[in-house]
Amino acid sequence: MPILKAAIIGGGHIADQNHIPALKALPERVELVAICSRDIHKARALADKHDIPLAFDNAAEMFESDNRPDLIINCTANHLHHPFTMQALENNCHVLCEKPPAILAAQAGEMADLAQKNGKVLAYNFQLRQTPEYSLLKRALDNGRLGEVYHIKANFLRRRGIPGWGNFTNKSIQGGGALMDLGVHVLDLALGLLGYSEPDRIIANTYDYIGKAGGKGLMGGWDAEKFEVEDACFAHLSFPDNASITLSTSFALNTKIPKNVNLEVFGTKAGAMLNPFSLYSEVEGELVDMEFPHLEETDIQLKNTIAFLDACDGKPSNICNAAQGAVLQRIVEAIYKSAEK
Amino acid sequence: MPILKAAIIGGGHIADQNHIPALKALPERVELVAICSRDIHKARALADKHDIPLAFDNAAEMFESDNRPDLIINCTANHLHHPFTMQALENNCHVLCEKPPAILAAQAGEMADLAQKNGKVLAYNFQLRQTPEYSLLKRALDNGRLGEVYHIKANFLRRRGIPGWGNFTNKSIQGGGALMDLGVHVLDLALGLLGYSEPDRIIANTYDYIGKAGGKGLMGGWDAEKFEVEDACFAHLSFPDNASITLSTSFALNTKIPKNVNLEVFGTKAGAMLNPFSLYSEVEGELVDMEFPHLEETDIQLKNTIAFLDACDGKPSNICNAAQGAVLQRIVEAIYKSAEK
Amino acid sequence: MPILKAAIIGGGHIADQNHIPALKALPERVELVAICSRDIHKARALADKHDIPLAFDNAAEMFESDNRPDLIINCTANHLHHPFTMQALENNCHVLCEKPPAILAAQAGEMADLAQKNGKVLAYNFQLRQTPEYSLLKRALDNGRLGEVYHIKANFLRRRGIPGWGNFTNKSIQGGGALMDLGVHVLDLALGLLGYSEPDRIIANTYDYIGKAGGKGLMGGWDAEKFEVEDACFAHLSFPDNASITLSTSFALNTKIPKNVNLEVFGTKAGAMLNPFSLYSEVEGELVDMEFPHLEETDIQLKNTIAFLDACDGKPSNICNAAQGAVLQRIVEAIYKSAEK
Amino acid sequence: MPILKAAIIGGGHIADQNHIPALKALPERVELVAICSRDIHKARALADKHDIPLAFDNAAEMFESDNRPDLIINCTANHLHHPFTMQALENNCHVLCEKPPAILAAQAGEMADLAQKNGKVLAYNFQLRQTPEYSLLKRALDNGRLGEVYHIKANFLRRRGIPGWGNFTNKSIQGGGALMDLGVHVLDLALGLLGYSEPDRIIANTYDYIGKAGGKGLMGGWDAEKFEVEDACFAHLSFPDNASITLSTSFALNTKIPKNVNLEVFGTKAGAMLNPFSLYSEVEGELVDMEFPHLEETDIQLKNTIAFLDACDGKPSNICNAAQGAVLQRIVEAIYKSAEK
Amino acid sequence: MPILKAAIIGGGHIADQNHIPALKALPERVELVAICSRDIHKARALADKHDIPLAFDNAAEMFESDNRPDLIINCTANHLHHPFTMQALENNCHVLCEKPPAILAAQAGEMADLAQKNGKVLAYNFQLRQTPEYSLLKRALDNGRLGEVYHIKANFLRRRGIPGWGNFTNKSIQGGGALMDLGVHVLDLALGLLGYSEPDRIIANTYDYIGKAGGKGLMGGWDAEKFEVEDACFAHLSFPDNASITLSTSFALNTKIPKNVNLEVFGTKAGAMLNPFSLYSEVEGELVDMEFPHLEETDIQLKNTIAFLDACDGKPSNICNAAQGAVLQRIVEAIYKSAEK
Amino acid sequence: MPILKAAIIGGGHIADQNHIPALKALPERVELVAICSRDIHKARALADKHDIPLAFDNAAEMFESDNRPDLIINCTANHLHHPFTMQALENNCHVLCEKPPAILAAQAGEMADLAQKNGKVLAYNFQLRQTPEYSLLKRALDNGRLGEVYHIKANFLRRRGIPGWGNFTNKSIQGGGALMDLGVHVLDLALGLLGYSEPDRIIANTYDYIGKAGGKGLMGGWDAEKFEVEDACFAHLSFPDNASITLSTSFALNTKIPKNVNLEVFGTKAGAMLNPFSLYSEVEGELVDMEFPHLEETDIQLKNTIAFLDACDGKPSNICNAAQGAVLQRIVEAIYKSAEK
Repeated sequence: MPILKAAIIGGGHIADQNHIPALKALPERVELVAICSRDIHKARALADKHDIPLAFDNAAEMFESDNRPDLIINCTANHLHHPFTMQALENNCHVLCEKPPAILAAQAGEMADLAQKNGKVLAYNFQLRQTPEYSLLKRALDNGRLGEVYHIKANFLRRRGIPGWGNFTNKSIQGGGALMDLGVHVLDLALGLLGYSEPDRIIANTYDYIGKAGGKGLMGGWDAEKFEVEDACFAHLSFPDNASITLSTSFALNTKIPKNVNLEVFGTKAGAMLNPFSLYSEVEGELVDMEFPHLEETDIQLKNTIAFLDACDGKPSNICNAAQGAVLQRIVEAIYKSAEK
Repeated sequence: MPILKAAIIGGGHIADQNHIPALKALPERVELVAICSRDIHKARALADKHDIPLAFDNAAEMFESDNRPDLIINCTANHLHHPFTMQALENNCHVLCEKPPAILAAQAGEMADLAQKNGKVLAYNFQLRQTPEYSLLKRALDNGRLGEVYHIKANFLRRRGIPGWGNFTNKSIQGGGALMDLGVHVLDLALGLLGYSEPDRIIANTYDYIGKAGGKGLMGGWDAEKFEVEDACFAHLSFPDNASITLSTSFALNTKIPKNVNLEVFGTKAGAMLNPFSLYSEVEGELVDMEFPHLEETDIQLKNTIAFLDACDGKPSNICNAAQGAVLQRIVEAIYKSAEK
Repeated sequence: MPILKAAIIGGGHIADQNHIPALKALPERVELVAICSRDIHKARALADKHDIPLAFDNAAEMFESDNRPDLIINCTANHLHHPFTMQALENNCHVLCEKPPAILAAQAGEMADLAQKNGKVLAYNFQLRQTPEYSLLKRALDNGRLGEVYHIKANFLRRRGIPGWGNFTNKSIQGGGALMDLGVHVLDLALGLLGYSEPDRIIANTYDYIGKAGGKGLMGGWDAEKFEVEDACFAHLSFPDNASITLSTSFALNTKIPKNVNLEVFGTKAGAMLNPFSLYSEVEGELVDMEFPHLEETDIQLKNTIAFLDACDGKPSNICNAAQGAVLQRIVEAIYKSAEK
Repeated sequence: MPILKAAIIGGGHIADQNHIPALKALPERVELVAICSRDIHKARALADKHDIPLAFDNAAEMFESDNRPDLIINCTANHLHHPFTMQALENNCHVLCEKPPAILAAQAGEMADLAQKNGKVLAYNFQLRQTPEYSLLKRALDNGRLGEVYHIKANFLRRRGIPGWGNFTNKSIQGGGALMDLGVHVLDLALGLLGYSEPDRIIANTYDYIGKAGGKGLMGGWDAEKFEVEDACFAHLSFPDNASITLSTSFALNTKIPKNVNLEVFGTKAGAMLNPFSLYSEVEGELVDMEFPHLEETDIQLKNTIAFLDACDGKPSNICNAAQGAVLQRIVEAIYKSAEK
Repeated sequence: MPILKAAIIGGGHIADQNHIPALKALPERVELVAICSRDIHKARALADKHDIPLAFDNAAEMFESDNRPDLIINCTANHLHHPFTMQALENNCHVLCEKPPAILAAQAGEMADLAQKNGKVLAYNFQLRQTPEYSLLKRALDNGRLGEVYHIKANFLRRRGIPGWGNFTNKSIQGGGALMDLGVHVLDLALGLLGYSEPDRIIANTYDYIGKAGGKGLMGGWDAEKFEVEDACFAHLSFPDNASITLSTSFALNTKIPKNVNLEVFGTKAGAMLNPFSLYSEVEGELVDMEFPHLEETDIQLKNTIAFLDACDGKPSNICNAAQGAVLQRIVEAIYKSAEK
Repeated sequence: MPILKAAIIGGGHIADQNHIPALKALPERVELVAICSRDIHKARALADKHDIPLAFDNAAEMFESDNRPDLIINCTANHLHHPFTMQALENNCHVLCEKPPAILAAQAGEMADLAQKNGKVLAYNFQLRQTPEYSLLKRALDNGRLGEVYHIKANFLRRRGIPGWGNFTNKSIQGGGALMDLGVHVLDLALGLLGYSEPDRIIANTYDYIGKAGGKGLMGGWDAEKFEVEDACFAHLSFPDNASITLSTSFALNTKIPKNVNLEVFGTKAGAMLNPFSLYSEVEGELVDMEFPHLEETDIQLKNTIAFLDACDGKPSNICNAAQGAVLQRIVEAIYKSAEK
């Protein structure tokens, strides 16, 4: 395989801590040639720190440079996922875009269409797919250990986890709150277990009481006056084959556990808990609880970057693809619409 | 207050173990004068065992007897709740009817209308209202400790708890499965926290995979071939003021805990867990977990019988009344309808 | 099936508490017609207490009585297992004999031979075979879940459990100490997992330090001066197919746990722990620990008596049979011989 | 005392991580002058890293160099323990040889004989002797707190701990599997409690089922096709004074605990558990469990190196000496012979 | 020994539940001939229930009856301990008096003087002396295991344990609150470890905040308006030999544990915790925690009654004697005096 | 505010590890200009390490230097607290002096008087005041959550924590043992809850048994022959308003926990435990246990240094001030006097 040339768009924490180290750890597959940030100082600082040849504050220039990239990692703010991804696809680049896919369902659809038209890989960075627990859950499901899965409880709940930095409470930049930032992760995992089929019925409620009231923050203090998004969202999704998902996600909720990221999966032959991974089933006619004490820790970003590169190389990959991203974004939009009623 | 004359209709376990002992423990308020069962032998055996003057196998005879009752405890099978309650109300008796109120919403409505027309008390035996945990939860809510409650998770889940006796899997007698038998309890509790308002949107799914497949039973073995009801039901209820309830109930589910009866209540000022009762809130600007280690055990049937007698005597009472029963039955029906789609 | 007539020989605690209640609980299969004890007062007292028609102090008379028994429960002291079992077999009775089979290997061999010659069932009361844990272990083994079992650690250890009553420390009556009384139970269970094959190599050590020194007793005080048996025995058994058993048993040992009865079973596909029953294996390529939280409690004496009656009726049965008892007694004798070296 | 000149033979992990740092930490007692490895690059790299003056790939040259060593640390592969130790002794060096002493009992005997003949110290690096727990156990034993020790269970068990690197599964290099690599440690500890007397009876079984079948590895993946050694060994050792040892060791076994290194020691006055160190005894006529919560952590390699240097200086030392090594190697050989039957 | 004739004065719970059953369990040593209560109906009811020949409502009559007692159990209210004990001693009876000895120090002194003058045994029913934990603590101390004891923390603390019945909050009847009812128990135990020497310095504080404020009761509700005694008392006692006791006792205190009865004993060689009994010391130069997992349960009232009868028979006894009772009462009085300052 | 110039007197561990880093972390408020130590080499080494301009071995010179300090951190040995603090105050410096304030009460009084006379801030470094637990406790108290506090148990107990270095056992340098070094911390905290009022009655006992006997040390070995101070001190303080404190402190005590630093605070409305911070109270008429799971970790020395600088700047501050230090020193002296009786 030829070594692909990669460029980063977006100079924030997630570029610095996740994507650049993952790319740098794969020199036999990818070469990081450029970084682009609105703020040229940020771009240059990261380029220096990580030994990246080129720094830009204008994506168009980057795409026109001699050493133009084959693929783009789009780690800009949510509202920029769509424009920069479109621009990259138009420039015949593969794109790994941060989650959520976009702000609107129509945007994610457009992005998927363009990727298909241009024959490029568009993928989303739902890196929780790469945890050893989810991999094992998928394997168990694929091998028939769960039977048919008919109900999933998907939770991403924080007690007081409204980030005190960034734009997490700004609706026009983020497109939403807990659902857009956290809930999409476990929604993606749950959909992955149901073949990423699309629900035919959705009902949801969203809230912003605690976000607007303020209080103790476990991720820094937030500005209650500028809190524009939902701090909690509860939804029920029903699918054509009668499977169902209960989704619960919060930035802030009066609950005991500070951070609870989990799936409870109910199948005809066994149930599964994601964290810690467990199976509940019958063995020799008796109820059995199975625990898996030795799952190996994984660098999930590295694994997801590899999955993206595999897709770029035409290999099988468990990355969240463009079509899945479009389904997910339609569901997110439907949840918000249901909540507005 | 005069001592009220009571009669029991229905000669099963719940009469023998719950209602008769409760009535017998309150001799200063009520006198148990008769018991009526389709099976006269059962009726006579219970009358002998508990020292009840009269035994009947025909309710009409009972209502015409010299020592006619002032109130009826209706502990017949679900499909008989409506006819015997109507007959009792027509005979100017107060009625404490076992849960669920009826099989159909229209029946519960008719029962409530007749009670009102005849000026009689009609109440339902949701005795979990009387646990010390729920009493404390209500007190905390009423005194403003939770702020405004906006979301409730109501669970009544059994891992393998399909009863191996009785008619629990017979749809025409029971009207349904886990929801009719178990879910209604925690639904009643949750509605009680929301002022028993009526949801304007409902979505639900029901399942019968395990019930129809058979397997290990923790409450005796059941006949998978005669399993006609749902073994699990998941629903989302949304209310006009934007509050919401997630209801989960099962006779059988591949989950760890054998029996899980709980409410998680999320309010603007505090969250509450019902069992063990706990509050999650802020004190002096810090997150606090409050536990209540010394709640006193209660005879919940006795307390509910007293609540019913208080209602008969025109006193304030926290019994589930006829109007509430009608609301609950409409919700149950709406859940089943949603699940049929 | 005709109802069999049963008689008890031996008027001690184990007759009163275990065997008679079990027989009495099975009136459709067995009728208890007589009890025989050296002490006619004991015999009569038990006959009165349990409503048994006849009481004897002479077995020969019993066998000649009009209402002569079809089967005998021999619950005499160890050294009487042989003579009374021989007498019963000679009188054409089936025999359920208490464990251990006898004092000497030759006795157990003689007993097995006579049973075969007379076409009678001779069985031994190793009732731990009937625990739900051992039943499940056997089922898992038979269904191939463990693969091939190659090593078993069989423990029956007490910290200070020398009984302060009876003849447990008298060598001529008991034939031995911890091994004869306790170790035989777990040895029988372990052999049952290996097809009751006979080891070709045995090494063992026995001790009596604590028994002869005296000290704190958790089952009453014992007379250190009359302590004639081993208080601990450790042995290694190797089988022709290379399987092996490590047997550890004690009346008294300086160890933490007061009473430790357990098997650890190591198979090619899974390992098992008997108490609490657990399996250690691999699932989906990962190490898994399986626990079985809902095994039902069992009346193990009742189940063993039924197993004996099944054998008498020619049905399949998991009772310890005469041939197995002879194997076990040869092993016990070999252990003692090895320890004498 | 003069400062001794030391040289290392063997350039692997154990030289780099254990022996060189220990020697370097004792500049007042020993000077590390040379390192010898078959691979001169390895030798030079270690010499550079640790500031060692000379590097060789030929031991003979090293012994002839001007700065010839007074003592040798032999940390070569097992099959080289014998030749290099013999060569070092012939060159009048003291030797601290890694465990096991050798592959064959005859080798270890030869090595001990030559050491005695040349008046040199030959010792083996059983560094677990230096843990605070074993030191305390020895002290308690020596001061009579255990009374007479009569049985020891010595365990070194791994669930899936076949190293995925090195030569651990190569029989000609290692001489064996779990027993040679792991079991010898706890066997040495147990023998140390019994005065290193020699057993007069041994029985053992070895297995290689899991090693040859492959599966999940907790210490990397291993090559099941090249698995030539035992993955588990169970043995019973009986001593002339009737003491006994049960030895259990495994690279791979279907058991719960990933790594279990322990001794259970049974004495007439008290029993002891090594990890965590505990005593089980009687105080004031009552059973007592004693725990020792504040044992200090120790650098056990440093302590063992000091013990070796003490021996070289003619001081009392608890190092495993040449005679003990010969006894241990004879037992290992006897175990393997018994297992072959 | 002749069988002693006993009579009970006081017809309350403690007579019925503790003293009468203990006396009745010792027919070979004592015969219960009479019971005397102010309320003749109570006396007769107890006499009937327990098969006691005579019932009186006048002690003088009892002492003059034909079947006059040799010993008296005085289980009247605290303020009657003095008059009835004096009367009994004057009538040449031995007396076992309930704790506390009296209301005033002078009373206890008078009682001791009269007992000595008349040569009768006067003893107090501090039955916690008979727990297996305290017996073991005393044995350990007497055998030198603790070295010299220099400080004791004696706690009898209840969180909300003001009895909702009886006269526990009435100062003229009880003489005090938590100290008189609860604290005296652990004070007696602590003094027993220090040879019942008398402190030369005392400082104390008492409180009644919670008692007078009311609130949740774990032993029934109490009448805050009639709360006349201390609900908590903290005192420091210093002895001529520099030993010291910290005494803490409460009926009600805002603390976590509902009931905390314990001694922490600090000696030069070891410290001890009473419940659960533990020793903290050094063994082989290491800190050791000793636990005693198998202490046998005891009927402490029966053992204390036997101790009293032993004293009456002139045998050694660990009963609290008249002189000790006088010391204890002086300390109690000194504590109250210190608290008044 | 102008930046204050600071100098350190005392070149030990506490200067190096605590005070210098804290000052260096606050460049906007304070500039560290000099360090003075008896040992000029120590002074220079610290100056080099921390980039401090000037190093002295003579305080007088330092006060006369051009760059003379505005404030002094006095971290000399206890017996030098008085002379150097007096010298600093005379030179018109603010002083933050290490605890305890001094050796004698008169010294602390003199120091407070001079500070007042010269209008300088004198404060003591009781940095435990700055833990998040104590801050929360104070806030809860100030907001009335505890009601009125009437009893405090203040513990600073070590099992074997006599430091094996420094002068901790030297009476003339330290002024005392556990009380001077450890007890003063929790005494300061307790007094802070009672408005730093002064007790009118004190009783105390001190001991030195373990210190003089020697044994296992958890903080290094100590020289039992040079042990001149108390290893344990128990005291009871009673205040004019009837509040009381039980103080327990030890370097060495036969107790389970190695280090136990805690306050138990008993108030009329709630009780509090300092570590982990908890409240015990009533909510809705039920007993409640409140835990605070998310208190943020704090750099307590940094916070205390800021509190001192705030005081220097005339801002409100929770630093221990000169008057409080004088009260505390009087109490310490009274405790020692009481213990001498």
